[in-house]
Amino acid sequence: MRNVEDKLDALRRLMAERNLSAYIIPTGDFHGSEYVGDYFKEREYMSGFTGSAGTLIVLSEEAALWTDGRYFIQAADQLAGSSILLMKSGQPGVPAIEAYLCDKLEAGSVIGFDGRTVTAGFVRKITEKTGAKQITFAGDEDLVDHVWTDRPAISTEPVWELDAAYAGRSREDKLAAVRDRMREKQADVLLMTALDEIAWLLNLRGNDVKYTPVFLAYMLMTQERAILCVHEQILPPEIREKLEHAEIETAPYNTIGEIVSDVCREKRVWIDSASVNYSLMGSLPADAVQIDRCSPVIYMKAVKTPQEAAHIREAHIQDGVAVTRFIRWLKTSVREQSGEHARSEAAERITEMSAARKLETFRAQMEGYLGASFAPIIAYGAHGAIVHYEPTAQTDVQIRAGGLCLADTGGHYREGTTDITRTVALGKVPEEEKRYYTIVLRGHLALGAAKFIHGICGQNLDALARAPLWEAGLDYNHGTGHGVGFLLGVHEGPQRFHWRINQNVQSVVLEEGMVISNEPGVYLEGRFGIRHENLVLCRQGERNEHGQFMYLEPLTMVPYDRDAILPELLSDRERKLLNDYHALVYKTLAPYLTEEERIWLQEATAEI
Amino acid sequence: MRNVEDKLDALRRLMAERNLSAYIIPTGDFHGSEYVGDYFKEREYMSGFTGSAGTLIVLSEEAALWTDGRYFIQAADQLAGSSILLMKSGQPGVPAIEAYLCDKLEAGSVIGFDGRTVTAGFVRKITEKTGAKQITFAGDEDLVDHVWTDRPAISTEPVWELDAAYAGRSREDKLAAVRDRMREKQADVLLMTALDEIAWLLNLRGNDVKYTPVFLAYMLMTQERAILCVHEQILPPEIREKLEHAEIETAPYNTIGEIVSDVCREKRVWIDSASVNYSLMGSLPADAVQIDRCSPVIYMKAVKTPQEAAHIREAHIQDGVAVTRFIRWLKTSVREQSGEHARSEAAERITEMSAARKLETFRAQMEGYLGASFAPIIAYGAHGAIVHYEPTAQTDVQIRAGGLCLADTGGHYREGTTDITRTVALGKVPEEEKRYYTIVLRGHLALGAAKFIHGICGQNLDALARAPLWEAGLDYNHGTGHGVGFLLGVHEGPQRFHWRINQNVQSVVLEEGMVISNEPGVYLEGRFGIRHENLVLCRQGERNEHGQFMYLEPLTMVPYDRDAILPELLSDRERKLLNDYHALVYKTLAPYLTEEERIWLQEATAEI
Repeated sequence: MRNVEDKLDALRRLMAERNLSAYIIPTGDFHGSEYVGDYFKEREYMSGFTGSAGTLIVLSEEAALWTDGRYFIQAADQLAGSSILLMKSGQPGVPAIEAYLCDKLEAGSVIGFDGRTVTAGFVRKITEKTGAKQITFAGDEDLVDHVWTDRPAISTEPVWELDAAYAGRSREDKLAAVRDRMREKQADVLLMTALDEIAWLLNLRGNDVKYTPVFLAYMLMTQERAILCVHEQILPPEIREKLEHAEIETAPYNTIGEIVSDVCREKRVWIDSASVNYSLMGSLPADAVQIDRCSPVIYMKAVKTPQEAAHIREAHIQDGVAVTRFIRWLKTSVREQSGEHARSEAAERITEMSAARKLETFRAQMEGYLGASFAPIIAYGAHGAIVHYEPTAQTDVQIRAGGLCLADTGGHYREGTTDITRTVALGKVPEEEKRYYTIVLRGHLALGAAKFIHGICGQNLDALARAPLWEAGLDYNHGTGHGVGFLLGVHEGPQRFHWRINQNVQSVVLEEGMVISNEPGVYLEGRFGIRHENLVLCRQGERNEHGQFMYLEPLTMVPYDRDAILPELLSDRERKLLNDYHALVYKTLAPYLTEEERIWLQEATAEI
Repeated sequence: MRNVEDKLDALRRLMAERNLSAYIIPTGDFHGSEYVGDYFKEREYMSGFTGSAGTLIVLSEEAALWTDGRYFIQAADQLAGSSILLMKSGQPGVPAIEAYLCDKLEAGSVIGFDGRTVTAGFVRKITEKTGAKQITFAGDEDLVDHVWTDRPAISTEPVWELDAAYAGRSREDKLAAVRDRMREKQADVLLMTALDEIAWLLNLRGNDVKYTPVFLAYMLMTQERAILCVHEQILPPEIREKLEHAEIETAPYNTIGEIVSDVCREKRVWIDSASVNYSLMGSLPADAVQIDRCSPVIYMKAVKTPQEAAHIREAHIQDGVAVTRFIRWLKTSVREQSGEHARSEAAERITEMSAARKLETFRAQMEGYLGASFAPIIAYGAHGAIVHYEPTAQTDVQIRAGGLCLADTGGHYREGTTDITRTVALGKVPEEEKRYYTIVLRGHLALGAAKFIHGICGQNLDALARAPLWEAGLDYNHGTGHGVGFLLGVHEGPQRFHWRINQNVQSVVLEEGMVISNEPGVYLEGRFGIRHENLVLCRQGERNEHGQFMYLEPLTMVPYDRDAILPELLSDRERKLLNDYHALVYKTLAPYLTEEERIWLQEATAEI
């Protein structure tokens, strides 16, 4: 494998031949997916940074990589020794990409990129910022493809069907609902490029993207037609038949540009320029009228049907059993490992990676389990402070008795998708770590117990989770919660818990049926990290003269670690919330456990 | 005085003569002021509804009045018996004004109004809504003026100077800062119409508007010129001289339209169409380029200078002494009044109005006191549930021992403006009322004690005040907090505590120096109302690796009523917050009190 500098040099030669002053390598497939198939990992290949988010900009004399707060520590580590500068997005003094380009490039420069991997909105932002400099773009060639000689092939895994009993709604129903929304907005055509939207709409799933059961596809709808562009070999005959029955045409994956050019002529086209790729946007005929807004499917899939919600509860019971077993195993094994007898047996030692594999085996024992919903984060000690740490052979460390181990993992089950973080106390935990554990728990409990009137957005509630941290002079540099798909992306919008109010993005009212994570944390670089995460289901509660009240039903069913809690820091209300949740966890999981496990759980969930 | 129906008939005759299908009578002077001088009270004159906010629409066959949640009960009361329909803004099923007009009017109709009392933005909203109906507007005649035969004269009270030692910044400084902002936005001209902005900018105050020490004026600035349009007789010679010294020209109040037409020709003009009146907007030459955004002065005046902040603290000590004396007097007198002896002396009975007068005399004893900052709300028993209740001769009731009396009042002092609500327990208070009192207090204390990172907006923190109410199935139909001017409007933006995130209005980061109210409440119609309100000053606190922390310094110094608190509902933390605040109140006010008052306050602020 070539090293990063060689790759950058090779790319710069190609840039020079084409007279490009800058080349942009985002983290992206052609669909704006968060996780991408191996074929699409150009940024990782070029920079060595393996995080799920980041954009590399290569200039003739320098290169820089932007990533967000989750990855500051990991990126600094992985870029160390390379010539690539780390740009910590949103930190004081760090320019936005467009400002950086405006500053670095001379008037008349040309910026290159693979136009299929960059959104139209991103290119527009650069244009707006660089205005007078008359920067132009070359988006028609994938230069990294020339550098990346051993590139994996594009994935073409078979599509499979999600039973309508799981979805709670037929694809015909969903298509009709989308067409209703198109009529409302007077849109003749709707172009969809997000893989999870297409999978949701068609009640189909696939295996083309790591951690997300989707398949590579584009889709275009009118009132009469629905055209699905896929690698045709991925559709088994029985699914092809069902699509035909639903009057859905299929076409080859790469023909979407031609289809857009053809179908959209003189039409009003609903397209989200913030998410559609630059090349596809370029296929839109000049006489088409753009209706530039979020796809209606985003909102529709965020609100789970009662059938989906019922299944999601089942998925969380399975996941709760697996993760509870894992925690018991981890606490017990680490204790044994540190005993006199075990210390001699080097082969038995538990590391972050071996623990992740163990958790995978516990999950794999569950009937509905399909696979991980994201790269497992098992982060011991100081690694816990790296928000999206993923152990690798280079970083893997032994997990010992003493301190905290943060485990943020999740699974896809036939019944739904899970995402859970528990921070596990191993052996003796310093008082300070317990204090922080308890403070974060207070915020997590406060948000989880929130009752609120209908109309409230996640932006309004985020402070409930942070208030106990702020009071102690702490904070965390990530959102408090994200939406979760139904056997789709583990991160989905539009709802979120984050205080930041974005003038360009509608703040979304929390509605009955939305699934969202509740995951405050605290991270002390070089020392330790703590996070508690449950998924919750937004529910309608009481309605009275003051309004319609809403509450959050806990989906995740795994105990917190009593060994790390300082009860004296909890108010009576917080203690009750904790004990009530633990009682619910015990009641829910006990029927699925062995007697030995049940006894362990009884102690782990005993009243504080 | 003519009755409402006669007035409506007279207006309808004038409308018919001019072929107007609708006539709009907002609550407004020519400057969008919240409170208006008597000359401008057309809506009150025509409808009989005396609240500070409301819009009357008169059609040939019906009339309707829109007002907000603060006034639902009062408006229903005052409109009862008239033909005017009450429209509760924002309630389900209640149309917005523009939707109502669109529904009621035939194509080609003409809507009349006095274009000086209606904002350009409001007219644009109607145009957008009624689009295809081709509605037109006649904004050049004040028809109510013909109906209102005994109309008071327009106010022309003398202007007075605010010493720069109070303002902390000279008018020359402020003008220079505004010109900097104009250069940033490449604006040649800035048009200012809001009275508090002009008063702030010039360090001048006046007396043309009830409850707000401002004067009627328009102002227009370029890099070279500053033109102040006022009734010329309101400027005393020494102020006229100082204005000349600061190179500020003066012109007659009514010439602003001509000046705009003249100065703005071919210029880039900064004007806020959401607040400037329709007539003045019409004076803008067609070749002017509009820069349509909030005036820069709004943000500048919201951030108090250290000198202003120091004076505001002094104002609150004076106000604290007066209000504390009032509460002591009220509690004691009501108790005595209910005693055997006093019951016979009818002349001594305390009513809402007499209590308001008594509070005014306590405030008037304070050295810096200038007058009330809004109509005092002294609301006993069920009146407390009327959020903006103002006792009148018709509604005034005796205040007796038993139940709660809500007192929301404020004053202008030479040192600043106050706004405080205390709910006072009189005699025996039912347990339920105490429970609600304590729940509201929990929310009020939680928000007041908020520590948060810089970047947070009021929209993020509102839930802290509401969470304890929501938990109990309660809510209130108003914001939790508003900005307060420095010897200016008692309500000012742009900062606020309210969960509603308005896509059209920038959510404003809470900055060091902002004054804002913290006033959750609970209202049970026909029974009682509770509100606790302090003003707080946003301050910078600790800065560490997690960010710059901010906190809220309490300005208001008046005890809550221990007689209405159920200590068992408070957490240890809440109890500590309460006791700490009470200790601070005692320490701050004691030096200014008589021995008898001091002893009373000591008991009133004793630890719980």
